[in-house]
Amino acid sequence: MPAYKAPVDDTLFLLNDVFAYERYGNLPGFSDAPPDVVKAILEEAAKFAEEVLQPLNQTGDSEGCNRNDDGAVATPTGFKDAYTQMAEAGWIGLTADPDYGGQGLPHVLGAALNEYISSANMAFGMYPGLSHGAYAAIEAHGSDEQKQTYLPHLASGKWSGTMNLTEPHCGTDLGLLRTKAVPRDDGSYAITGSKIFISAGEHDLSENIVHLVLARIEGAEPGIKGISLFVVPKFLPGEDGGVGDRNGVTCGAIEEKMGIHANATCVLNYDEAIGWLVGAPQKGLRAMFTMMNEARLAVGIQGMAQSEVAYQNAAVYARDRLQGRALSGTQQPDKAADPIIVHPDVRRMLMDQKAFNEGARALVVWTALQADVARRSADEAERQAAEDHMGLLTPVIKGVLTDYGFQHCANAQQVYGGHGYVREWGMEQFVRDARIAQIYEGANGIQALDLVGRKLPRDGGRAVMAFFKEVTDFVAAHGEDEAMKPYVEPLGKAARDLERATMWFMANAMAKPDNAGAGSYDYMHLMGLVALGYMWARMAKAAQDSQGNGLDQGFVDAKLVTGRYFMERVLPETATRVARIEAGADTMMALPADAF
Amino acid sequence: MPAYKAPVDDTLFLLNDVFAYERYGNLPGFSDAPPDVVKAILEEAAKFAEEVLQPLNQTGDSEGCNRNDDGAVATPTGFKDAYTQMAEAGWIGLTADPDYGGQGLPHVLGAALNEYISSANMAFGMYPGLSHGAYAAIEAHGSDEQKQTYLPHLASGKWSGTMNLTEPHCGTDLGLLRTKAVPRDDGSYAITGSKIFISAGEHDLSENIVHLVLARIEGAEPGIKGISLFVVPKFLPGEDGGVGDRNGVTCGAIEEKMGIHANATCVLNYDEAIGWLVGAPQKGLRAMFTMMNEARLAVGIQGMAQSEVAYQNAAVYARDRLQGRALSGTQQPDKAADPIIVHPDVRRMLMDQKAFNEGARALVVWTALQADVARRSADEAERQAAEDHMGLLTPVIKGVLTDYGFQHCANAQQVYGGHGYVREWGMEQFVRDARIAQIYEGANGIQALDLVGRKLPRDGGRAVMAFFKEVTDFVAAHGEDEAMKPYVEPLGKAARDLERATMWFMANAMAKPDNAGAGSYDYMHLMGLVALGYMWARMAKAAQDSQGNGLDQGFVDAKLVTGRYFMERVLPETATRVARIEAGADTMMALPADAF
Repeated sequence: MPAYKAPVDDTLFLLNDVFAYERYGNLPGFSDAPPDVVKAILEEAAKFAEEVLQPLNQTGDSEGCNRNDDGAVATPTGFKDAYTQMAEAGWIGLTADPDYGGQGLPHVLGAALNEYISSANMAFGMYPGLSHGAYAAIEAHGSDEQKQTYLPHLASGKWSGTMNLTEPHCGTDLGLLRTKAVPRDDGSYAITGSKIFISAGEHDLSENIVHLVLARIEGAEPGIKGISLFVVPKFLPGEDGGVGDRNGVTCGAIEEKMGIHANATCVLNYDEAIGWLVGAPQKGLRAMFTMMNEARLAVGIQGMAQSEVAYQNAAVYARDRLQGRALSGTQQPDKAADPIIVHPDVRRMLMDQKAFNEGARALVVWTALQADVARRSADEAERQAAEDHMGLLTPVIKGVLTDYGFQHCANAQQVYGGHGYVREWGMEQFVRDARIAQIYEGANGIQALDLVGRKLPRDGGRAVMAFFKEVTDFVAAHGEDEAMKPYVEPLGKAARDLERATMWFMANAMAKPDNAGAGSYDYMHLMGLVALGYMWARMAKAAQDSQGNGLDQGFVDAKLVTGRYFMERVLPETATRVARIEAGADTMMALPADAF
Repeated sequence: MPAYKAPVDDTLFLLNDVFAYERYGNLPGFSDAPPDVVKAILEEAAKFAEEVLQPLNQTGDSEGCNRNDDGAVATPTGFKDAYTQMAEAGWIGLTADPDYGGQGLPHVLGAALNEYISSANMAFGMYPGLSHGAYAAIEAHGSDEQKQTYLPHLASGKWSGTMNLTEPHCGTDLGLLRTKAVPRDDGSYAITGSKIFISAGEHDLSENIVHLVLARIEGAEPGIKGISLFVVPKFLPGEDGGVGDRNGVTCGAIEEKMGIHANATCVLNYDEAIGWLVGAPQKGLRAMFTMMNEARLAVGIQGMAQSEVAYQNAAVYARDRLQGRALSGTQQPDKAADPIIVHPDVRRMLMDQKAFNEGARALVVWTALQADVARRSADEAERQAAEDHMGLLTPVIKGVLTDYGFQHCANAQQVYGGHGYVREWGMEQFVRDARIAQIYEGANGIQALDLVGRKLPRDGGRAVMAFFKEVTDFVAAHGEDEAMKPYVEPLGKAARDLERATMWFMANAMAKPDNAGAGSYDYMHLMGLVALGYMWARMAKAAQDSQGNGLDQGFVDAKLVTGRYFMERVLPETATRVARIEAGADTMMALPADAF
């Protein structure tokens, strides 16, 4: 059975040594969590993930969710108890507003918690994860009454949330959606239609489920402009803060999937269900994007988190499994064979994973800190810069971290040889579970298009220019430092590749948008590589500067080696990405559709 | 439900137009199959794969194999009937020696048949596939009596075969194996031990199962030198060519796996089972390699075959699914949205797959023709050159085609969005099934080590130098041809990258073998890219020269465009591969084992 240990030391290194967490002490919530409290919180989160959630991961996968004929869904054994523990310990409301019963702690701590939960049990983590999205949408767009009605219950975990976008004929293209909302006399709406792929859509963990549903008000214009957002609870809110009548939404089926079996992916049928408009009519998509950005960051975290837990197990196996002898000469002559970690090609897989996981964690922590700044800073310029950062890097984190996450789960499985393919070892589950993260919350190709089509040109390229400036300023500041050269020289080269690709779009995509579309995926990965490279350069600098910080020397040495590995082995891929981008769309689009 | 159409036209293009099949007419077996007969055979093979095997693929996956308490294993519904049809039609013995009841047809036709079967139903195809390996080992190393006893039954499909290498504590490092063989008075041996991961190890398809088993004769030296190969049939051969007593080998369990559920992966327990030595004592590993090379080529074909069927379905979906509008302007104004094939990023995935599938098919056909030459040519120099080719390219085909195969199945799944993750659409099965091909018959890292550690230096580098010469001669011959420049210029550059990497090994790996190990995987992929690039250049040339060959103009145009796409978008990856190889082993090996 696989094991998991939450990387608390690594999170603390990022917070304390790399990103100077204490400098954010002026933001609301941060003063409640000085470094010693942060450490205690992370250690408790680790314990919960390791001891409560991880033991339910493999059993949850094999048991799955079960739907009764009446539409009720039972989660796997142990899930309800774990959920109750999670809610009671306050983890669900960790970052929620204290006005609504939350703990108001920094989002960066929420991101670390998300990582640990997702490594331990991704399918479980989706239940509270969806609640966070619902919370964010109502907080940003709901009326005061809606906030009072829903936010305290979502923060406490007493109620949970979902996002309802997809219909059988429409996923990415939400303009096609048919679910309709008919005004009722009391200001509410009767919602009718069918939604599919609704994660955590029905289950037995919470007292009520708060569905946020995109629908078209009868008579509204076609296309995405006519879409509004509604809150449609499974049970209507009761007078006393409890639940009232059952609403007209039922689970028609749960999907049989490749993975995340312990999360119920539902077909939800709305039959004149009572819902209330959230935000302005026909502004539903904008409101839903609040949930989606939150969700996209969380999905990026899932990719990294699956890679992390798969890596940890592969490393243990590679140290234990005896097979063959080292190319450089026998290492353990007293044993029948050497452990496979002596073989360079096994190291290659482990180092690839380690370099990705730690770089990705840094990127997540950096970005989650920006989320805190964006939401909590009193300085408008700071907030705008932080929002630019998040707008630019959210699609990159979602797309790139989930692509690598899947790939590294497969490589961790590969370390196990044939045992990796067998269910009982648990490695193949990580691969199956990680796969969904590339697909949902906007398939990765959509993230790439969002990045290139929307985020790059927005505000005259302000966000991407700020990103370039930050990276190139760092390269310039440390370019003469001998110890930093192995990091900043490759980073500088990669940043130039990114600038070159950006210029190419500027020169070639205006007249021919297909050139942007054709290069978008490689561009997303190119930016991801530069961002990860920048994170490694920052971590190397922090490791070099760490004398007296109390860091273990082995930890410091490993950072410096792993960062160098990233620069030597991973970052050179930028050259190939640029070549593909510059190939443009002509050949890609040349064939008629029936030639495929 | 997914569909499948065998690419007969593409196979014929390769045989007739690219590799001039008719020039091999002097080899035994080829005269029985002139081009019109080849076409008829391939069309019949296609029909069998499409109509008999493909409809059992999804049901076989969901039903799986079932083991009774007595150790008997039932294959999924319909498998026995399909197997009987396959045997009766003569497909199992297609390439087998007519002296043993086979049809004696060229191996290249066997490779095409394998592809179609594997695309249609990979788990099914493994049953006859393993028989081919057993046939090849007995044909090459067995006594006349063994050949008479086993080969006719293996060729007819009345009996099937297996390979028994792995034990719980030993996979790659067969020197550790413990299964023992004790000589009996009659010249046979009593085999005792436990083997795991035995594909097709027990089932209800054939009257008897012929296990080829690696074991150590009691008292033989430890390590790989002490290993011998035995034939251990499930039922002892009877006097009349039928079966006699049940032998002491039983299926102790079948594994629950990620995929290929319809193939029984068995734990086989040998309890003083009667076996006979195949070949010389203590030369078992060499004899087993005969089976393994055969099997490795077949596994490479599986990778390509899964990518092909996944691609075909993704292409259909991309033409049908309406979602969004083309970046270049609305394409189908009469519909609610354009089909997603108009989006460059969907094209990217389809073109990547198409460029891989067709290039890989060419590499397989080219190499299978070399197998025919190696086994059937009267000219020793020709035979040696063909054997060099096969020795060099077998690990490349196994490793590279299965890596891309898995990746492209995942990309084909991605085209389906959320539907790709749901079982009923069948796309996720391709991903799960394709995954094993990277692991079994020697994990891909082992293929890379075989290539770099054994195949490159063998005979003073004769094989790799011949490969370079063939590629660079082609580049030189067509470098001045304007129409060929888009193909040969990138190919020439890629070949120089491969030469550069080869030189780097020569200069850096002698003194430090870890440098070879550290770069082996990238080298394998680098050689795979050059080999695929060479295939595309050959196909482009054949397409350009095809006037009057009766080829459809759309087919010719698609070849030229797809080849160009490969050169522009896939081949540039060689630069990254070289950079990684030249990074060497120092950083990769720097961390102590406990730093992971």
